[in-house]
Amino acid sequence: MITLASDFGTPYPAAMKGAILGRCDARLVDVSHDFPRQNVRAAAFWLAKILPEFPPAVHLVVVDPGVGTDRAALVVRVGEHALVGPDNGVLLPPARALAETVPDAAAASGTPRDPPIDTYELDPDRPRSSTFHGRDVFAPGAAAVHEMGVERLGELDGLAPTDSVVDLEFPDPERINEGFLGEVLVVDGFGNVVTNVPGEVLGNRSVARIDGEPVQIVRSYAHAEAGEAVVIVGSHGNVECAVNRGRGDDRFGVEPGDALRIEFS
Amino acid sequence: MITLASDFGTPYPAAMKGAILGRCDARLVDVSHDFPRQNVRAAAFWLAKILPEFPPAVHLVVVDPGVGTDRAALVVRVGEHALVGPDNGVLLPPARALAETVPDAAAASGTPRDPPIDTYELDPDRPRSSTFHGRDVFAPGAAAVHEMGVERLGELDGLAPTDSVVDLEFPDPERINEGFLGEVLVVDGFGNVVTNVPGEVLGNRSVARIDGEPVQIVRSYAHAEAGEAVVIVGSHGNVECAVNRGRGDDRFGVEPGDALRIEFS
Amino acid sequence: MITLASDFGTPYPAAMKGAILGRCDARLVDVSHDFPRQNVRAAAFWLAKILPEFPPAVHLVVVDPGVGTDRAALVVRVGEHALVGPDNGVLLPPARALAETVPDAAAASGTPRDPPIDTYELDPDRPRSSTFHGRDVFAPGAAAVHEMGVERLGELDGLAPTDSVVDLEFPDPERINEGFLGEVLVVDGFGNVVTNVPGEVLGNRSVARIDGEPVQIVRSYAHAEAGEAVVIVGSHGNVECAVNRGRGDDRFGVEPGDALRIEFS
Repeated sequence: MITLASDFGTPYPAAMKGAILGRCDARLVDVSHDFPRQNVRAAAFWLAKILPEFPPAVHLVVVDPGVGTDRAALVVRVGEHALVGPDNGVLLPPARALAETVPDAAAASGTPRDPPIDTYELDPDRPRSSTFHGRDVFAPGAAAVHEMGVERLGELDGLAPTDSVVDLEFPDPERINEGFLGEVLVVDGFGNVVTNVPGEVLGNRSVARIDGEPVQIVRSYAHAEAGEAVVIVGSHGNVECAVNRGRGDDRFGVEPGDALRIEFS
Repeated sequence: MITLASDFGTPYPAAMKGAILGRCDARLVDVSHDFPRQNVRAAAFWLAKILPEFPPAVHLVVVDPGVGTDRAALVVRVGEHALVGPDNGVLLPPARALAETVPDAAAASGTPRDPPIDTYELDPDRPRSSTFHGRDVFAPGAAAVHEMGVERLGELDGLAPTDSVVDLEFPDPERINEGFLGEVLVVDGFGNVVTNVPGEVLGNRSVARIDGEPVQIVRSYAHAEAGEAVVIVGSHGNVECAVNRGRGDDRFGVEPGDALRIEFS
Repeated sequence: MITLASDFGTPYPAAMKGAILGRCDARLVDVSHDFPRQNVRAAAFWLAKILPEFPPAVHLVVVDPGVGTDRAALVVRVGEHALVGPDNGVLLPPARALAETVPDAAAASGTPRDPPIDTYELDPDRPRSSTFHGRDVFAPGAAAVHEMGVERLGELDGLAPTDSVVDLEFPDPERINEGFLGEVLVVDGFGNVVTNVPGEVLGNRSVARIDGEPVQIVRSYAHAEAGEAVVIVGSHGNVECAVNRGRGDDRFGVEPGDALRIEFS
């Protein structure tokens, strides 16, 4: 199985699918091709939340504002999963999330432990274009990894271990007097504002102050009247600010990257 | 085969796909993830028109404004098809459409008859979240139904027959003096206005009055000049109001839920 | 394998998928369902660039502003590929691109040559609707071709060879005094302006004048500062006008069909 993720919209992903299917008979599953354009951070966040749902697979990830420059092409192995994409940080957060989720099969005796994250540089064989490495470098790379099998990744021609990779971290929220100074990580299609504040901090409280304004804490969107603002623990475990049957981003006037104070008192 | 339908946009459907593929090896087919958000009625309409095209399958349907409340989770069986989704009415119109289309295989002797529609409540095993039952309840439920097989649905753990389900009907148009008082059910991506008036009422007429204004009745969009308004029998058999190479919803100033008079005289 | 392409958006493509899967067990791959609406030329351009990436397949193409008129339904054979869709020109440019890419397997001795392009008229058996031939004519046609096998296409019932088909050509750019008078063929989702001027004309130059204004020629988008305009050879070999991390169509004020002067001096 090869999953595909990009910020390409349409129709470029089809060229990647053709390039894969011309090389191997993998099952293809689209993750999304509508990640915010050229936003490495948003894609890394979503992939860290979504890829651990999948059984072992090769994950092709192309959010690549540096295409055609000398940024490297990477293959990352985590247990029975492999990720293939540009060396701009987008692969590492999902790789860590996969490592946390998938216990190391090699740790047969004793307690399972996180599998190691192995990083390889992929040396493409003179790509056809300098503007579409999704089709010309990463899709062929993913097909080659699929054909070789993740467990035999090291035998693949053109692949060399490397420790020098671009990383990307999501900062923890800052502890402030009566709560947390968090950050808006992404806004989903419903307008729900996903923050970096872990859901546990809400405890059994019933009200939080969001940038100073009291907002009810509920279990799910529909526990408020239509149009009412709510604070909830979102599906990925983070604090979300939302509006039942409305848009939280409009209501709170925030977008990804903005700071957000979440306080209790 | 498992089909997937939701109002999630992107990237949440991928989490459902991962959750399914981690549990079974079903073939996945996307119906749509862009149904109008939280619009149970529009999704039910489209699914009633589209699902009968499919061979026997498990149909996962998640348009679920009540997620996290005490609304039940349902599995509905119709012949060799099963539908899995929230108990808010979205499953029943497509179930009835499937029943009309798929003759009962059990009626071996005599004339085929519609298969019964059997409804079961699905008791989820403490879902991981109260905001994303698509991933945590319905996708695992669909995978379980797929693995058990629709014909052995009754043997599935956590499934109990129920007759108490939320239903949803599409009203017939009202007969008025010189025609019908209909309702706009949905507007498609081309702007075509799909009404609840059955196409048969157009007969061999060449003109209808739409909210008082005469509009030509034609066989298809391109039987009018570009930019001209037309009344046609749409692909699902209902009367549609459209504009050749333009948008009918803009031209007639209507949206789903609006009343529309269709008269002949 | 059957690939699917249309301008339907959602949810109509699902009805085509159901119609196919009800008739055969083909693997389905979506190319795009978001081609510019009713724009035969844009779809033909993209398909000519994308379909040659695929291994042998049946390609279902439905961009069909003339649905329900007397325009014919076509099946086009090129080597081991077949295309199925309306007779409005949309199939011929991708057929020629496939012919250039796929050498004729029959030319076993001597140098390989382009396979012939064979065109057949498909006589549908009284379609259910006059507005949705994607579901009622072309999807069943593609399923029938898939079941018969492309190499035995001629044996299919309801298929008759024809030489009278609508064609569509992309004009070569016009040579002018100091360069070329080109045309904007399509604008992609990033806003990149794809022209009909072949990339080779850029040679080793570092500057071009676009409609009179000097613009740097670079190897890829990121070889300019964010917000800067660039001229590049796009992934399909054509000259593109773009803005790094911005939209070229806005910057140059052009849309598909517009003329564009590309000069060197």
